[in-house]
Amino acid sequence: MDGVPVERSQRLSRAAAQRLSLYLRCVADWPMDGEPVSSGRIAEAVGVSDAQVRRDLAALGHLGQRGVGYDARELATAIRTALGIDRPWRAVLVGVGNLGRALLKYRGFRAQGFEIIGLFDSDPTKVGKDVEGLTVESVTALGARVAELQAELGVLTVPGDTAHVVADALVAAGVRGILNFAPVVLKLPRRVRLVTVDLAIQLEQLAFQVQHGDSAARATDEE
Amino acid sequence: MDGVPVERSQRLSRAAAQRLSLYLRCVADWPMDGEPVSSGRIAEAVGVSDAQVRRDLAALGHLGQRGVGYDARELATAIRTALGIDRPWRAVLVGVGNLGRALLKYRGFRAQGFEIIGLFDSDPTKVGKDVEGLTVESVTALGARVAELQAELGVLTVPGDTAHVVADALVAAGVRGILNFAPVVLKLPRRVRLVTVDLAIQLEQLAFQVQHGDSAARATDEE
Repeated sequence: MDGVPVERSQRLSRAAAQRLSLYLRCVADWPMDGEPVSSGRIAEAVGVSDAQVRRDLAALGHLGQRGVGYDARELATAIRTALGIDRPWRAVLVGVGNLGRALLKYRGFRAQGFEIIGLFDSDPTKVGKDVEGLTVESVTALGARVAELQAELGVLTVPGDTAHVVADALVAAGVRGILNFAPVVLKLPRRVRLVTVDLAIQLEQLAFQVQHGDSAARATDEE
Repeated sequence: MDGVPVERSQRLSRAAAQRLSLYLRCVADWPMDGEPVSSGRIAEAVGVSDAQVRRDLAALGHLGQRGVGYDARELATAIRTALGIDRPWRAVLVGVGNLGRALLKYRGFRAQGFEIIGLFDSDPTKVGKDVEGLTVESVTALGARVAELQAELGVLTVPGDTAHVVADALVAAGVRGILNFAPVVLKLPRRVRLVTVDLAIQLEQLAFQVQHGDSAARATDEE
């Protein structure tokens, strides 16, 4: 969508970007050539207020019609542009254990334009094996292969004790962002972005909501 | 910590609860009988402002000393109490595939007081098998077993097309919260809490940060 000025979408906070990801899930389920989607429907599905949805979407430019709603296709395009996923992203995955295999099978990545194009492991018994249509390569090849594969992102599914060494190798190989599943705090150069998925935090958040019942049930993380 | 009034911690927003989880990771790495932890150190490690950390921790009650910092042990206890993880939580896991196995091996759960005490799968070839010290049971046994095991939480690692049926079975069996890894939007009764981990969203957030560079690099999701 060329109606979104770059400066505007750059000002999105991380919290707003996360909400946009959720709105996109909701809009993607909507019939693309059907009725307009209302902010109320999105708000209900995602669990934030109607006003928050309207504010977030207003920040993307002139979308939707008052009292009518948003065109699903146009809205999906605008959100993808704002998030930077209106183009494919190429990623390598390091650590072909249970979690790595689960991610390779995960259809959601490809559906959102993320393609895993290289697999690496330090275990010599895994190197050379075929997993989900890719051949596992040695981590020692990362330096050369990331550039050859033109991979921008690295997915780290190695044990905590080797995560740092592998992250450093990915950085040296030139990736621009790392999705880290290892339960460690990684220190990376500022130019490389890091998202850490700490699965225990998700369980903690669930426990928090169960413990505190309805008062915490509605998302109150609005801005 | 008995200094935290229940009403106060109930007023925590989900965003604040998420930040507390991150502070807890940082504090847990600190020597427990060592020097006090400063809000600045926590802020730097987590990537939010010093003021935000101080505000969040002030909401937990009288902690820390101005100009000195927080006692690591006291702070960890206060955060655990506020989040409701100052007691163990019992969970069952449904779907013993790659992701389920990865979660069973994940040491972070037990470290934070989450214990997976029952495994269920619909695949008859998996039922009866021993996985990580537990015997896989049939999903048809969920109704009786959740109560027997006194499980409060369910972890859902089944494919998207069966997630709804299994979630309904978990709800009927009496769990109070579900951690859902299936890429579907579940509709549950209001009394049952739901946290959905959408792994593609994590990759989207990484792409967003890479795309927009430093402007999005600092967490700006402050309240």
